[in-house]
Amino acid sequence: MKKLRIGIIGVGGIAQSRHIPAFLQLRDVCEITALSDVNIERARETAEKYNIPHVFEEYKELFSEVDAVCICTPNKFHADITVAAFEDGIHVLCEKPMALSAEECEAMIAASKKADKVLAIAYHYRFMKEAQAAKKAMEEVGTPLVVRVQGLRRRKVPGWGVFTNKDLQGGGSLIDYGCHLLDLALWLIGNPKHIAVSGTMYNTLSKMPNQVNQWGTFNHETFNVDDHVTAYVKFENGASMLFETSWAANIKVDQEHLSISGVDGGLSVFPFEFYTTKNGMLLNSQAAWLPGEENQGLPQAKNFIHACLGVEELIVKPEEALQVSQIIDCIYESGGTSI
Amino acid sequence: MKKLRIGIIGVGGIAQSRHIPAFLQLRDVCEITALSDVNIERARETAEKYNIPHVFEEYKELFSEVDAVCICTPNKFHADITVAAFEDGIHVLCEKPMALSAEECEAMIAASKKADKVLAIAYHYRFMKEAQAAKKAMEEVGTPLVVRVQGLRRRKVPGWGVFTNKDLQGGGSLIDYGCHLLDLALWLIGNPKHIAVSGTMYNTLSKMPNQVNQWGTFNHETFNVDDHVTAYVKFENGASMLFETSWAANIKVDQEHLSISGVDGGLSVFPFEFYTTKNGMLLNSQAAWLPGEENQGLPQAKNFIHACLGVEELIVKPEEALQVSQIIDCIYESGGTSI
Amino acid sequence: MKKLRIGIIGVGGIAQSRHIPAFLQLRDVCEITALSDVNIERARETAEKYNIPHVFEEYKELFSEVDAVCICTPNKFHADITVAAFEDGIHVLCEKPMALSAEECEAMIAASKKADKVLAIAYHYRFMKEAQAAKKAMEEVGTPLVVRVQGLRRRKVPGWGVFTNKDLQGGGSLIDYGCHLLDLALWLIGNPKHIAVSGTMYNTLSKMPNQVNQWGTFNHETFNVDDHVTAYVKFENGASMLFETSWAANIKVDQEHLSISGVDGGLSVFPFEFYTTKNGMLLNSQAAWLPGEENQGLPQAKNFIHACLGVEELIVKPEEALQVSQIIDCIYESGGTSI
Amino acid sequence: MKKLRIGIIGVGGIAQSRHIPAFLQLRDVCEITALSDVNIERARETAEKYNIPHVFEEYKELFSEVDAVCICTPNKFHADITVAAFEDGIHVLCEKPMALSAEECEAMIAASKKADKVLAIAYHYRFMKEAQAAKKAMEEVGTPLVVRVQGLRRRKVPGWGVFTNKDLQGGGSLIDYGCHLLDLALWLIGNPKHIAVSGTMYNTLSKMPNQVNQWGTFNHETFNVDDHVTAYVKFENGASMLFETSWAANIKVDQEHLSISGVDGGLSVFPFEFYTTKNGMLLNSQAAWLPGEENQGLPQAKNFIHACLGVEELIVKPEEALQVSQIIDCIYESGGTSI
Amino acid sequence: MKKLRIGIIGVGGIAQSRHIPAFLQLRDVCEITALSDVNIERARETAEKYNIPHVFEEYKELFSEVDAVCICTPNKFHADITVAAFEDGIHVLCEKPMALSAEECEAMIAASKKADKVLAIAYHYRFMKEAQAAKKAMEEVGTPLVVRVQGLRRRKVPGWGVFTNKDLQGGGSLIDYGCHLLDLALWLIGNPKHIAVSGTMYNTLSKMPNQVNQWGTFNHETFNVDDHVTAYVKFENGASMLFETSWAANIKVDQEHLSISGVDGGLSVFPFEFYTTKNGMLLNSQAAWLPGEENQGLPQAKNFIHACLGVEELIVKPEEALQVSQIIDCIYESGGTSI
Amino acid sequence: MKKLRIGIIGVGGIAQSRHIPAFLQLRDVCEITALSDVNIERARETAEKYNIPHVFEEYKELFSEVDAVCICTPNKFHADITVAAFEDGIHVLCEKPMALSAEECEAMIAASKKADKVLAIAYHYRFMKEAQAAKKAMEEVGTPLVVRVQGLRRRKVPGWGVFTNKDLQGGGSLIDYGCHLLDLALWLIGNPKHIAVSGTMYNTLSKMPNQVNQWGTFNHETFNVDDHVTAYVKFENGASMLFETSWAANIKVDQEHLSISGVDGGLSVFPFEFYTTKNGMLLNSQAAWLPGEENQGLPQAKNFIHACLGVEELIVKPEEALQVSQIIDCIYESGGTSI
Repeated sequence: MKKLRIGIIGVGGIAQSRHIPAFLQLRDVCEITALSDVNIERARETAEKYNIPHVFEEYKELFSEVDAVCICTPNKFHADITVAAFEDGIHVLCEKPMALSAEECEAMIAASKKADKVLAIAYHYRFMKEAQAAKKAMEEVGTPLVVRVQGLRRRKVPGWGVFTNKDLQGGGSLIDYGCHLLDLALWLIGNPKHIAVSGTMYNTLSKMPNQVNQWGTFNHETFNVDDHVTAYVKFENGASMLFETSWAANIKVDQEHLSISGVDGGLSVFPFEFYTTKNGMLLNSQAAWLPGEENQGLPQAKNFIHACLGVEELIVKPEEALQVSQIIDCIYESGGTSI
Repeated sequence: MKKLRIGIIGVGGIAQSRHIPAFLQLRDVCEITALSDVNIERARETAEKYNIPHVFEEYKELFSEVDAVCICTPNKFHADITVAAFEDGIHVLCEKPMALSAEECEAMIAASKKADKVLAIAYHYRFMKEAQAAKKAMEEVGTPLVVRVQGLRRRKVPGWGVFTNKDLQGGGSLIDYGCHLLDLALWLIGNPKHIAVSGTMYNTLSKMPNQVNQWGTFNHETFNVDDHVTAYVKFENGASMLFETSWAANIKVDQEHLSISGVDGGLSVFPFEFYTTKNGMLLNSQAAWLPGEENQGLPQAKNFIHACLGVEELIVKPEEALQVSQIIDCIYESGGTSI
Repeated sequence: MKKLRIGIIGVGGIAQSRHIPAFLQLRDVCEITALSDVNIERARETAEKYNIPHVFEEYKELFSEVDAVCICTPNKFHADITVAAFEDGIHVLCEKPMALSAEECEAMIAASKKADKVLAIAYHYRFMKEAQAAKKAMEEVGTPLVVRVQGLRRRKVPGWGVFTNKDLQGGGSLIDYGCHLLDLALWLIGNPKHIAVSGTMYNTLSKMPNQVNQWGTFNHETFNVDDHVTAYVKFENGASMLFETSWAANIKVDQEHLSISGVDGGLSVFPFEFYTTKNGMLLNSQAAWLPGEENQGLPQAKNFIHACLGVEELIVKPEEALQVSQIIDCIYESGGTSI
Repeated sequence: MKKLRIGIIGVGGIAQSRHIPAFLQLRDVCEITALSDVNIERARETAEKYNIPHVFEEYKELFSEVDAVCICTPNKFHADITVAAFEDGIHVLCEKPMALSAEECEAMIAASKKADKVLAIAYHYRFMKEAQAAKKAMEEVGTPLVVRVQGLRRRKVPGWGVFTNKDLQGGGSLIDYGCHLLDLALWLIGNPKHIAVSGTMYNTLSKMPNQVNQWGTFNHETFNVDDHVTAYVKFENGASMLFETSWAANIKVDQEHLSISGVDGGLSVFPFEFYTTKNGMLLNSQAAWLPGEENQGLPQAKNFIHACLGVEELIVKPEEALQVSQIIDCIYESGGTSI
Repeated sequence: MKKLRIGIIGVGGIAQSRHIPAFLQLRDVCEITALSDVNIERARETAEKYNIPHVFEEYKELFSEVDAVCICTPNKFHADITVAAFEDGIHVLCEKPMALSAEECEAMIAASKKADKVLAIAYHYRFMKEAQAAKKAMEEVGTPLVVRVQGLRRRKVPGWGVFTNKDLQGGGSLIDYGCHLLDLALWLIGNPKHIAVSGTMYNTLSKMPNQVNQWGTFNHETFNVDDHVTAYVKFENGASMLFETSWAANIKVDQEHLSISGVDGGLSVFPFEFYTTKNGMLLNSQAAWLPGEENQGLPQAKNFIHACLGVEELIVKPEEALQVSQIIDCIYESGGTSI
Repeated sequence: MKKLRIGIIGVGGIAQSRHIPAFLQLRDVCEITALSDVNIERARETAEKYNIPHVFEEYKELFSEVDAVCICTPNKFHADITVAAFEDGIHVLCEKPMALSAEECEAMIAASKKADKVLAIAYHYRFMKEAQAAKKAMEEVGTPLVVRVQGLRRRKVPGWGVFTNKDLQGGGSLIDYGCHLLDLALWLIGNPKHIAVSGTMYNTLSKMPNQVNQWGTFNHETFNVDDHVTAYVKFENGASMLFETSWAANIKVDQEHLSISGVDGGLSVFPFEFYTTKNGMLLNSQAAWLPGEENQGLPQAKNFIHACLGVEELIVKPEEALQVSQIIDCIYESGGTSI
């Protein structure tokens, strides 16, 4: 079987730490043939390090050397590059969030369908062992009623990269961090249609001078994204979601929490455990051992390639990632008064 | 000083376990002079046990023997009895929730004002040591941003009393249990005006046959109240509240949780602790010792009597209890589709 | 329905603490009408305390006043009294162990069958919540392979009663304490036929002068029972059991442990938990809440009475108690060289 | 002093990870001069890596270059190679188990005696700090009564090597893993003569298809060794041993446990602690610090070399290792019906 | 044997809670025949409650009815009453501290010797199980080097009794509370001669208005005793002691700590444990079970009576209690500048 | 700005592990230009490793190449080298303790003043995050009353270097290890004048043959320093200090403890926490996160350089280090009788 030729667009942190190592481990089915980056120096160094033949400054030049691309640019460029790739008949694995808005996401999906090529979004939390286990354990939970999501960090605004730049990223803690947990929660409950979304955004803390921040420093004057978001979502199937995410919350300790209470039982994802009734007893169960990989990059890359090769169903479908973006849009709209 | 003459209307569980013992402990300032109960036998036994002179079947007959009443009937009767008491110039300590609806609450307040008598509502959580400490610690929190409330029990629908009867109680887990935490949360953040309320009610679990319940059994066929409620509230001052309460949730373990993240710090009420920044450090603080009483009935009764005697400000003001009922009304309305 | 008339034979500790209170709680279906004890004074005091009409020194005189007896004498008398009771057409609940030997047990069963009356043995561990839960959880375990039993106390030879008297009790730690766990283990795995038993008895420690004992003092010179026993049992269905019990072991801390590993899963009784595989995961589960009574005396008495009344199957069947005694006999025989 | 010339026969995992590094650390008293392996490639790579002068495919050719050999082949070849080495006047450190059967072990001992050369068996658990401490602490335990051994893994059948091949290894979990704990237990109690052995072998779990296994995969159809063994051993001195080992038990968590209760006290090896009585008190003692090496390979190699040089007594004597094999033979025989 | 006739002088808290119950339990060897108290009402009620024949307002009148007295008055009266009792040939058990000063103590001892009657001081900490165990464990410690004593309470000045009255008590936290630990420490190391004492006294905290106190309230203006004391003592045998006691320290949590490091090992009394070296190992040992009584009053009374009867040596000798007072005198002198 | 030229005198452990790496990290403000060591070989290897241009055997030759020196020799040489450096107009960072005696320290300070150059002492504990936090938290403590210092190791006499050589080091556990905690304690309470010092020195344990030592072996016959010291210090401001340090104490586990109780609150440094009263509550607070560096070498070097450059105040002032040496002198004098 011919190996899939992969191109990486944008060779910053996420490409270096997750995607490139994963594709390299899958040498039997793929090959990284090209890189591109607006910072051509960084691209060249990376190519040299991993012995990758082609390097470009302009991403479009890379298309001729690849069958599939992995897009690792700032969020602002996700949609344009994706659409361009499909126009050249190239499969796409795009970093999360899918794009700056649901509208852009829809354009991406349309292009994917027209090209009949795979469009995967790198919501890698889905590939955590706990997440895979939780998906299976939904059979113990039954119809979901209440979903609780907390992705909270205490005073940890990222002091590097473009994270606090709204123009490039489209938002802050919600679009960058909370989106993972939102996606995971939606997937676990089967992506039911959302019928009402209400939210509130905050950035009071990050606009204050002289603040304590654990993750380096940033310019509080130019800070223009959300650092804390709460939201409430109602779904067509009767479920409701209590959602909170933050980079900078005044809390005791960081929280990464996703739990669901359903008609038959309940579960928590981190740590993975579930709660059931049986023979008149109330039971709590945890995993003593879970199958799967520690590093989510590998199964994510494998699923993408297998989907491109037509031998496996895509795990993170673009329509699901679209719903994440739709809800984020709603929250940013309904919660806009606070910033 | 003449002692305040107290009458107890309704001598069920809450009267026996909390109010009567508290008033008896305060013999230097008050005296229980009369009891009434539609179950006249129970009233007579109680009077004998505590050596209380007057017993009545009809509550209105009691008014001539007392300066103040403590109303411990099913929720449905709170408003009528309160208004009647004020018409006779009698102070009122009314059990929570204040009444079946905000409309009833408003009538009670109007009557109180007209009579110029004290109207207190028995939201006794306010008198917990942790709650008093948290109120003081709000100065460390500063302007509140996010309020999280969880009053969750796992499979513990009350299998006794009238708790599952909507006609008498006006609702289930929210109006009976969640109201305490809602009241406490509102008080801690200063009862800002609520500008949006969205909620969902559930009773799927309690309508199922053959369920596991830790607190006795009840008729799942006639069950017609909420056993689980989620809600989201936005306030005029920019704060938002994520709220959940339940009698029957499929969760790991019961949760009673109230935490607030504000501009300057955060706090949790159960257990009491707070989170601040100082001199560039992030600090967590807990109480090694808190002043106050273990049993909230005593300071509650003391505050009521002192308010009647005009020597202390009322801690649970009727306008605050009204807001609790307003928000409960909103939740029951917005969340009505699920039951 | 006529109430079952109960007689208690022997009113020592176990009668006072477990059986009499249990029968008194079940007034709607039974009545204690008579007591007997060789210590007639103790019998009279007990009768007075509980308002029981008839008292006898000689147990046979009691038979005319009762429908059922509960035998609480030293082990030596279990068989004779049981057989005599059946000859008078009286149901029997006999304390554990069933008798001094399997031979005696068989005579008891034969008499029960001839009289067509109920014979129950008070292996009350069966009525613990954890035991009932474990019995149900055997469906998760599947075919049992290995059974581990440890009933070990550190330096706690009973310094009271007749426990160290072989003539009256037939043995020591095994027949008095270990028998409970042995019975429970056999029941959980379905009382398969035992095909080989090997054991060792010890009493070296209790024969030593100047020893440390947590439970009072006893005469080490007349001590003539086992204080520590190990055994190994093989069963027809392929299962094997590693068994140990002691009153006086030199161990870190007391151990009461019963676990089973089977083809599909494993379980532990104390605390109750089980171990399974599902969807490729290894799971551990515990009870968050178990139905049942804290005090095993009550469900034990209830089951006995209901069996006498013909409305419920006996939980501890005499044939099962016989197997316990058979295995004890084998251990005492095979392990005899050490004492 | 001339350095002892060492040859390694079989350069697989155990040679690479334990023996070769240990001998290399002891450069002042020995030198690895030769390697042999049927996989000559692997032998050559290893020699190159460690700069070892001689490499052979056939082990006998190696004899001329060495004074002592370390045998790291599959169990099947232990006896023949050992006997051959002695015939050439060469000392032997042989991996555990000593051989496939007690009969083979006896031949090895006879050859050792005839050659008057050292025969050591690599039961390296003996060299753990906890094991050395426990050996000393036997003076606190006094005459041993009960020995408990558990070497249990949950679903961890080795999915590599020849472990599941009965022809090459002679057995499974018992001969490969349980033998260590059995040897250690026998040594601690002074290798008393065993007078009765009863056991049961299982391999039901590992013969099932679609099982969960934490340590890779193996062919369940060809699996023909034990994966779980229980046994009971009686000794001439009155002690008895409860023994269990497994690769695949359905248990909560892996167990490696060895405890002994004796006449004067008790001890546990993992973690090391002991239990005594003194001045009327019951005491528990643990090590705050133990002398010795983390890695057992080093003291094992040192003891072997020193024994060869005649300056130290051998710690693992071949007669002791023979007893391990004798008991394993007995268990496999008595427990044979279950597989 | 004639029973010892006991008189109680002063029937306040310590008499009621510790001494009277203890003597009552020892009916076979003693009898409380008389009580006296300046508060004659309290004495009469007590006599009635325990059926004690004689009651006096003036303690001297009591002497004719007793063989021994137990002195439970404020510290100021210990010496005078003791001397008077000896003049009448009566044995004395005197509450701690022995007296207000070493000089008074010496007079008491002289009177005791002259009368040839027993003088015991109620340093009841000596009779704690941990203290008795520690005394035995001094054989593991060997020659003592360093003694550390901490008896610290956080903000717990006694808000009742005469504890804060220097005239009646002679001091505060040191003479009332720290004296117990000082006595215990001295006894454990064999009451070696002290050759240097340096100390510091504080009462800054208790002189402040509006302070937080967990044990009721007291008048900070009249407070004139020490609430915190540090000291350092050197002994003739080379040992040194670091000492601290307080009623009101600003610390995390109350501390009651006494540890000793010696030449052979170390120990801690609360909880009891000891630290030794053996066979090259460093060992920590704790008690799994200690012999003795939970309530120290009983063995204290028993030892006193047995000493009066001449059948047992006194455990708390007056010369030892004298040393405690000598050191307290030194500390109050050397540390006097701070108050 | 010209970079400060640094010379390192003595390139043993502390230079290699702490000072050289720190100066190398601060390349923008300094440059290591020269090394000297009596072991010229070691100096040359180090210079080569770090690419340092000048190497000398004699420290004085180095002065011409540097602006500042870091002195890492045995304690005996600190004073002479420091004075010599100042005579050449060179800044000095000298390892702790400052010198062998207070007299030497005074000479160093005089020389520093005369040269008008910086003299810093490497009491690096001051630069720990916890120490910096504690210094700030002294505002919560208020006027200090009691200071407790414990720097205790269990059987860990350094078995390497010159630590047990009195001639070179001037003492043992106190001057080598305890000095850090003493310095830190003094600094935290504001270096008040000490008005009385009493102490005791021990070395009994380290003089014994066949002892257990966790940190290698040493010659117990030539051992001539203290291995355990206790002391008590009174200060002009009324504070008192209980001090203990050891290399070899018979204790349960190593202790590094510094706590202070003051008028307003208390604190502990390891771990950092503080204890206050507020609003009638007793509070305990800990750091959730502290600013600063894990490695104290870096901020220490930075502060020294910045002080040399005149842009920052010195954190460890020589007068403070002098007080440490004064108190050490007092302890060695007052405690001298024990060794």
